[in-house]
Amino acid sequence: MALHHAEPGEIVDVRPLGAKLKQGINATLVLTDHLQVFRFILPAGEEFADHKVHGEVIVQCLEGEVEFRSHGKKQMLRTGELVYLAGDDPHALKGIRDASVLVTIFSGKTNRA
Amino acid sequence: MALHHAEPGEIVDVRPLGAKLKQGINATLVLTDHLQVFRFILPAGEEFADHKVHGEVIVQCLEGEVEFRSHGKKQMLRTGELVYLAGDDPHALKGIRDASVLVTIFSGKTNRA
Repeated sequence: MALHHAEPGEIVDVRPLGAKLKQGINATLVLTDHLQVFRFILPAGEEFADHKVHGEVIVQCLEGEVEFRSHGKKQMLRTGELVYLAGDDPHALKGIRDASVLVTIFSGKTNRA
Repeated sequence: MALHHAEPGEIVDVRPLGAKLKQGINATLVLTDHLQVFRFILPAGEEFADHKVHGEVIVQCLEGEVEFRSHGKKQMLRTGELVYLAGDDPHALKGIRDASVLVTIFSGKTNRA
């Protein structure tokens, strides 16, 4: 399942996982030469430490609530909110309420060898 | 409001518009050299005829239900589902239930003159 990437025109479910969140897995949903879309599970209390991505990024909160740190500030990213980052912007996430986020990375680089 | 584009690190609200949908406006939320994110309102019965985009596209249904045509087939795109298209894939949308969709276009071309 985790290895399946959507074909163009294929419907992909990104509805909230709800009670199944803690059994959920991080999964890449779309992978092309320049585009990567994945769902990332972030239970309350877990952190994804400072990192950066070589490419523009959109992080969308699909459910729950996440503390989002970038540009020297902490903000709450709540269900139905998204944030855009330029390439190489350092950022970190922490689950405040059990959360899953949709991460979309656009890279001029090729994702696939 | 429609002219404001999010800065990197700025939280953007893409929650369902609900009862306010019909007063909603199509708005570009993020615009960079290679990336455009906009919200598109599609009330029940309205159509967005066949078109194509020079760039990879993700269409995510934020609320309601949309008939999505691409690759010679019609599919329902429901709240919390998304679909990815390769550049220049023709596609069309029709509102089945009052809908708003989040459209993300990644282009190797520059969006801004």
